[in-house]
Amino acid sequence: MGKHDPSQKEKIADDLPSVLLLRQPFVFKVYERQFSEKFRFLKPWESSLPLHQFLSTHAASVQAAFFSAGRPITTDILQNLPELRFIMTSSAGLDHIDLNECKRRGIKVANAGSIFSEDVADTAVGLLIDVLRRVSAANWFVKAGLWQQKGDYPLGHKLGGKRVGVVGMGSIGLNVAKKLNTFGCIISYNSRKKKPHVTFPFYPNIQELAANCEIIIICCALMDQTRHMIDKNVMMALGKEGIIVNVARGAIINEKELVQCLLKGEIAGAGLDVFENEPNVPEELFHLDNVVMTPHNAVMTEESMNNLYEIVIGNLEAFFSNKPLIFEVVQDSGEHFGSKFLEIESWFQRCSSAFRYRDLVYDKKQ
Amino acid sequence: MGKHDPSQKEKIADDLPSVLLLRQPFVFKVYERQFSEKFRFLKPWESSLPLHQFLSTHAASVQAAFFSAGRPITTDILQNLPELRFIMTSSAGLDHIDLNECKRRGIKVANAGSIFSEDVADTAVGLLIDVLRRVSAANWFVKAGLWQQKGDYPLGHKLGGKRVGVVGMGSIGLNVAKKLNTFGCIISYNSRKKKPHVTFPFYPNIQELAANCEIIIICCALMDQTRHMIDKNVMMALGKEGIIVNVARGAIINEKELVQCLLKGEIAGAGLDVFENEPNVPEELFHLDNVVMTPHNAVMTEESMNNLYEIVIGNLEAFFSNKPLIFEVVQDSGEHFGSKFLEIESWFQRCSSAFRYRDLVYDKKQ
Repeated sequence: MGKHDPSQKEKIADDLPSVLLLRQPFVFKVYERQFSEKFRFLKPWESSLPLHQFLSTHAASVQAAFFSAGRPITTDILQNLPELRFIMTSSAGLDHIDLNECKRRGIKVANAGSIFSEDVADTAVGLLIDVLRRVSAANWFVKAGLWQQKGDYPLGHKLGGKRVGVVGMGSIGLNVAKKLNTFGCIISYNSRKKKPHVTFPFYPNIQELAANCEIIIICCALMDQTRHMIDKNVMMALGKEGIIVNVARGAIINEKELVQCLLKGEIAGAGLDVFENEPNVPEELFHLDNVVMTPHNAVMTEESMNNLYEIVIGNLEAFFSNKPLIFEVVQDSGEHFGSKFLEIESWFQRCSSAFRYRDLVYDKKQ
Repeated sequence: MGKHDPSQKEKIADDLPSVLLLRQPFVFKVYERQFSEKFRFLKPWESSLPLHQFLSTHAASVQAAFFSAGRPITTDILQNLPELRFIMTSSAGLDHIDLNECKRRGIKVANAGSIFSEDVADTAVGLLIDVLRRVSAANWFVKAGLWQQKGDYPLGHKLGGKRVGVVGMGSIGLNVAKKLNTFGCIISYNSRKKKPHVTFPFYPNIQELAANCEIIIICCALMDQTRHMIDKNVMMALGKEGIIVNVARGAIINEKELVQCLLKGEIAGAGLDVFENEPNVPEELFHLDNVVMTPHNAVMTEESMNNLYEIVIGNLEAFFSNKPLIFEVVQDSGEHFGSKFLEIESWFQRCSSAFRYRDLVYDKKQ
């Protein structure tokens, strides 16, 4: 970009379509300059007005909003935005948005679809290897100079041959299952319903799945039905050799019961990217070598942020030009909301910068 | 096992075939009781005699020895053991044994063959994900309470789409390649010679491989030709975004040059299970988040140790009963020493306890 006369720049920004933010999605921090060339972002945190008043002030001009996970989008907020017709969220998860209220108000919702699935699956595999093979703890052992002092390091456990239960067989769960299958793991799964195209054994009951596995990997959406689904009973069924990996949402596990089971050795370890009350993490777990924790960063790669940027720009442009969205959240016949990849081909045709993503999705070289 | 009269036990031990140890292989520590039921182990560290004298004392009775990696088996040691006819080593690597001298003296050598390959490959993948996605560093970030204080954690890098050069395409390298292929990595390899059954692109020149990759994973044997093969030139060819993972032997990398390249940011990171002068590790690397180090424990799982125990017992029994060995190190037409899986079928027939290993090798359930 060349230099602009500031008044000219202001004028250009005023002509751009308005998009409301509530707080900064991480991708916005990374690509703010590029985003701001195409849209005028309303940033309540830069205003001296309280949020409620800020929203009222801009109510008439806000047709689109760009939200991140973590901040609930309640009826209260939506009531303040009568002209809102489109919510783009930077997450794959939708648990922070009142989807029924959006539907009632005729607000379209789009999420990141499945663009994070590979990175999230990689994190799940990485956390699992880390817990089984004690990688983080061994790294600390070496870096603290304990190898010279203490010699032998405790034995880990082999990944191959382990029975792994995948909870949630969407794009992330399927990706985890395929990867761990290559490691010689024996996969089974639990999901809202049996997936016709998935050949791994299906357990409709989560406790039964846990009883038949040494490892469970949580990849499902957080909904009323899945909140605290992984409780003490499930952990007891998993057993003392059992390992839990969670790359979905913290509240799918009853965290208090998880902490107790870990402290008492009722399960063998955990790899956790998500927590019930982020960024607060149960401090009782801080000293446990068999618990590996990451700060909800399973999707946080440069490559994913670039892909997300493309999707957000593409969807906002589509909305403002009355074209079909790339991803859109739709309700299936069972009243379940899910993301639908609507227009990726036409999006590729109109959006040259999407080629990088296209490569990743379609043209895997091996 | 029931209780024995001590004198009876002594008598039984005296009747057992003698096997020399130099120091305790880790598997011996784990399975000492079981090993000692079948063989009488000579343990110089329990004797007041200097090693040289200990060896002379037992020279006439030592036909078999069980060694671990790390302690060189020199001509000097072999000269003290004129009756030695069989060396079993607990490692897959053979760099600590003077194989030409063994051949000259008619000493058969057997190693752990490929029984560690899966675990070592898993460690390589785990270290790579850890470095790319900052798992160990993120675990520390969370456990130090920094998530609440600092918020966002730095972005990592995606595994899928990365060009990975595998150095050494034996059973470990092939296993790494197959696994990373599932992650969408683009695999190529370097090896002593092109492998006719491997379809990944072959680079005869290591520097050329590095120039065409973002990641190199070292899985080859340490030999004169591979010592310090990964030097500054290779690292410069790999470049500032490059990551090196080493699960083979420390001395394949010029460690001083690696430290300099990491400190200067000439490469992006490293995952290291092995070092030139173990257990000494370059302290300059202790504070680097982009370097993940484990204490040469890539093979250290309970499952591997169990398999190793079976192999060692099986090979020692085969030797003392003049039967073919299970694994034996043989020289190929190119004068290269390699492990050959000679008798696994007949071993399965005569060794019921090997069923667990058989399951792992042959009957992968998925």
